[in-house]
Amino acid sequence: MNKALTNRGIDKIYTDSDFEKLLNSGKKLRMYFGVDPSGPIIHLGHAVVLKKMAEFQKMGHTVILLIGDFTGMIGDPTDRNAARQPLTREEVLENAKTYKEQAKKFLNFEGENPAELRYNSQWNDVLNFKDIIELSANFTVGQLLERDMFQKRISEQKPISLHEFLYPLVQGYDAVMLDADIQIGGTDQTFNMLAGRHLSKALKNKTNIVITCPLLEGTDGRKMSKSYNNFVGVEDTPFDMYGKIMSIIDDLIIKYFDLLTDISDEEIRDIKKKIESGENPRDYKAKLATEIVKMLHSQEEANEASAEFDRIFKEKQKPTEIEDFIFAGSMNIIDLLLESGLVSSKSEGRRIVEQNGLKIDDALITDIKTELSASGQVLQLGKRKFIKLKNN
Amino acid sequence: MNKALTNRGIDKIYTDSDFEKLLNSGKKLRMYFGVDPSGPIIHLGHAVVLKKMAEFQKMGHTVILLIGDFTGMIGDPTDRNAARQPLTREEVLENAKTYKEQAKKFLNFEGENPAELRYNSQWNDVLNFKDIIELSANFTVGQLLERDMFQKRISEQKPISLHEFLYPLVQGYDAVMLDADIQIGGTDQTFNMLAGRHLSKALKNKTNIVITCPLLEGTDGRKMSKSYNNFVGVEDTPFDMYGKIMSIIDDLIIKYFDLLTDISDEEIRDIKKKIESGENPRDYKAKLATEIVKMLHSQEEANEASAEFDRIFKEKQKPTEIEDFIFAGSMNIIDLLLESGLVSSKSEGRRIVEQNGLKIDDALITDIKTELSASGQVLQLGKRKFIKLKNN
Repeated sequence: MNKALTNRGIDKIYTDSDFEKLLNSGKKLRMYFGVDPSGPIIHLGHAVVLKKMAEFQKMGHTVILLIGDFTGMIGDPTDRNAARQPLTREEVLENAKTYKEQAKKFLNFEGENPAELRYNSQWNDVLNFKDIIELSANFTVGQLLERDMFQKRISEQKPISLHEFLYPLVQGYDAVMLDADIQIGGTDQTFNMLAGRHLSKALKNKTNIVITCPLLEGTDGRKMSKSYNNFVGVEDTPFDMYGKIMSIIDDLIIKYFDLLTDISDEEIRDIKKKIESGENPRDYKAKLATEIVKMLHSQEEANEASAEFDRIFKEKQKPTEIEDFIFAGSMNIIDLLLESGLVSSKSEGRRIVEQNGLKIDDALITDIKTELSASGQVLQLGKRKFIKLKNN
Repeated sequence: MNKALTNRGIDKIYTDSDFEKLLNSGKKLRMYFGVDPSGPIIHLGHAVVLKKMAEFQKMGHTVILLIGDFTGMIGDPTDRNAARQPLTREEVLENAKTYKEQAKKFLNFEGENPAELRYNSQWNDVLNFKDIIELSANFTVGQLLERDMFQKRISEQKPISLHEFLYPLVQGYDAVMLDADIQIGGTDQTFNMLAGRHLSKALKNKTNIVITCPLLEGTDGRKMSKSYNNFVGVEDTPFDMYGKIMSIIDDLIIKYFDLLTDISDEEIRDIKKKIESGENPRDYKAKLATEIVKMLHSQEEANEASAEFDRIFKEKQKPTEIEDFIFAGSMNIIDLLLESGLVSSKSEGRRIVEQNGLKIDDALITDIKTELSASGQVLQLGKRKFIKLKNN
């Protein structure tokens, strides 16, 4: 068994003690990762942290996935420049529902050393005003204003809502209530995790360790985010996942290899050199996509996704299996796109058609007034969406 | 009945509407004054506000004395430059106990239009974290930092504890829960009262009115404060009260007349002229002291206090009635001062004796080792404290 965490996937470790020594001291340590359930999907950004936690669990320590169902109601100001609308409890719980299933791809919730799943509403719901006053007395306004994001707001003369100052308090209290030895999360959570460290020290005289993991950018190089639609969900179908990885910008190939695969450092350096010397990045993306689909699905599904992808994009063929869309009579093309579920609104449909994104039996359709009747044609929207128009 | 509040005792009125018109609109208005029960005594500083409230109650409106028993546990950062230690609930309730009795000297808690006595723990105790987050979302950090006192702390590089930012929130919520039309308080409460105005507007779309009253300095000209021992309590004995007023610095005579008595503006102007033209301020202080004792006790007690004061200080005589302190054998002078209750510690006793503050039968005693036996002597500590030493 590997007795040290690998350095891969770690940005910085905040510790006062000899971390490696502590890891192997025989003491069962408690590591927690808090996720903000503002969306229903765990994506590859979370995966960087979850992979690290899996390593830690394999060493025999306790890992805890904390659903910030209480926190979600405040909203995390971390990556926003404007005050964020709090979610309702119902929205938060709906989002949290599938998290355990998704996290199972990395963590073991069964067996001798099961991962814990916790909800931070458990202890935050029962705090009263007096408790909060006592907790908040452990922080100064100055400490909070130091936060990068708040400094940015101030310099842009944008308001900071007082409730946003309460967020580090919650996260800090989570660390205390979980009796965490180690907090882990993305670098964007550094401030909040250090707040947890501060509060653990103040309330329990316990110095916990903070591990930050690099943030993984989305396929287009911007921050991975639902609102940019540039994320890869860990439950995406093998084919979708493969396709999305094939679409990442070239600059991210090495970072994805580094943070998401177990390919050796040596081999990654070699790939880097080859790309820099002019080899086609596409081949390495294919390797990367295969590795990631293998990790999150299986080798077999990775192979199938790869073959299918090649069929469609290299050989310009249609997929082996295309779903039928069955209707009678004739239908306007935009209505059809909406009813078949290929688009989520008529305006999206119109936009794609007008931007040359629609083909029927390989012929471009650009007139949004086109009427179609079903007679076995194959409709292709964008690069990867196909349906067959059938009469019932 | 006087249909307008007099201008005396008002610093500023924050209003969007025609205040006089509103006062006489026939609507029964709700005015509240929040007191921070950090000490057990209502002093002449509070009296300025309570006198104003009494006027208002006589006009037929509702007056509410709010005991900040919840707030007291946070501590009001208003007049402190360092973070303040919160009081316990028990300390706060102990202090609040006597408030109604003291306030009765101004407000009528009985009859057809009784004053209300409320405790702000009633609604603040039941707030949970989510409620507080929602309330705090109505304030920005920028609004709070604008507060003078916080600006001062920042410029002096002294920390502001986060819990102090929650204070205006409480006061604001008080105004909402009391459905206040008018908030009244000292000018040092302006910021908090405006927070109440802001929150009433945000939560109830109700624009309440804020009235600030000038702060009354203590006898020595500094802020009236328990820690400076320069305050006059509304329940001080007539003689103590009279003596304390006689001890105020000359610069305060006119302000005391203005804020605490019903002597006409004209007459006050006249007194001011006479003092400025060289008349002995002592005579006007005597008039002031008589007025204030009359207001808080009775005309008769005012007359008695005045006569007694003159006996002792003008005619250098001892008081008409001196309490006995009975003991047997002999006793060290410092122990005696402590046991008789004239001083609250031996060190205080030693200090006073060494500073020539002790006489026995008019003879100065400066040796702290003096042993006394009781044989009817009169012991005088400072100017106004007397006991007779008696053997039982």
